[in-house]
Amino acid sequence: MPIDPNADIEITGFVWVPDFARGFVRDLRPRWACEEAGLSYRERLLDFETAKGEDYRREQPFGQVPAYRDDEVQMFESGAMVLHIAERSEALMPEDRAGRARVLTWVTAALNSVEPFVFDLVNIDTFNKDAEWGRLRRPQVIENLRGRLASLSGWLGDKHYLEGGFTAADIIMATVLREVSDEALMAEFPNLVAYRERCIGRPAFKRAMQAQLASFAPEPVAA
Amino acid sequence: MPIDPNADIEITGFVWVPDFARGFVRDLRPRWACEEAGLSYRERLLDFETAKGEDYRREQPFGQVPAYRDDEVQMFESGAMVLHIAERSEALMPEDRAGRARVLTWVTAALNSVEPFVFDLVNIDTFNKDAEWGRLRRPQVIENLRGRLASLSGWLGDKHYLEGGFTAADIIMATVLREVSDEALMAEFPNLVAYRERCIGRPAFKRAMQAQLASFAPEPVAA
Repeated sequence: MPIDPNADIEITGFVWVPDFARGFVRDLRPRWACEEAGLSYRERLLDFETAKGEDYRREQPFGQVPAYRDDEVQMFESGAMVLHIAERSEALMPEDRAGRARVLTWVTAALNSVEPFVFDLVNIDTFNKDAEWGRLRRPQVIENLRGRLASLSGWLGDKHYLEGGFTAADIIMATVLREVSDEALMAEFPNLVAYRERCIGRPAFKRAMQAQLASFAPEPVAA
Repeated sequence: MPIDPNADIEITGFVWVPDFARGFVRDLRPRWACEEAGLSYRERLLDFETAKGEDYRREQPFGQVPAYRDDEVQMFESGAMVLHIAERSEALMPEDRAGRARVLTWVTAALNSVEPFVFDLVNIDTFNKDAEWGRLRRPQVIENLRGRLASLSGWLGDKHYLEGGFTAADIIMATVLREVSDEALMAEFPNLVAYRERCIGRPAFKRAMQAQLASFAPEPVAA
């Protein structure tokens, strides 16, 4: 297990979140990247009030987790930190320019061309379950997301990962696909279901998930 | 002007789009990056049918523009290609690891923590003007976007750019802020309005914009 209080890499997480969010908070991504790369990290756990406070916003201007630091670098945004961690390890990114550009491309595609469509659906199914606008809007959101998943499925074909072997891009894309809140829609794309399971079946993912789940206090914690 | 039919960098764009999209198609981003970096590029213009076709989807799986290639690399996603172009020029990215990580962080923040909230509003104001769900939903979309802009405004303070001098991150963030379809909301954050104007007032932006506008045929073009 790479959690080590003396590690140079520090990743922030929440000390408590509601049950529905457990296993989905985005510090999962850099935890997973560290596990794949064999890099140890230390946790710094925050309550919501601290995360929204002025001090922490100097590290993470949106008051969210994760934030990241190592001996040289301070950053936020889980996608960016996974790319940064990948630069320290061939386990997550090839060394040649062409291969690196492909990983960067697919991380960005997951974050900007797929996740916003997934989140449109989560926003209805999880956060606005009983809203009239959601009932009216949902069919079009499904249709838009279906289009994105069809494009992704067409690219993936029978490949095991997005680009050759497993890379940082698969960490981001698989965590995005885990967020899809309509399994019937996912089931229309068996190669994407298999891809997602292949990614989250990796021992490094399981260790990262266990570490996130183990970090939560059972009850809300005050500042 | 860095458009040169013999350039090693190729960027795809559309040969025609409706008036409301002119000046907002995302090939603007790599065009702008090339202008800042002083790198010449060649255009390859596509009609919608070609972009949605199987051949082009091998380059751009979502059937969109821009796609990018140079002597070594093939990629898509405007955010990724701006980062890639930035690696070729100190004009867009500092050389030290800490500074590079900050640019990567802010590009990702613009794409994943700001643009989806901007696009939620565009989606109502531009693409679903008369929809009942949009009328019901809009106040919450404004509230969510206001929160993101407030965080960004708090970070920016009286700085001229996101991180020291102008970088690739400002290309992405300024193009995201140009998409906000409610100027009254933007006006609540004078430092963001000034920042956006500072960025798009740069000669390189103006040249990129002129180049995109000049590329469009006056009438739709068939395949």
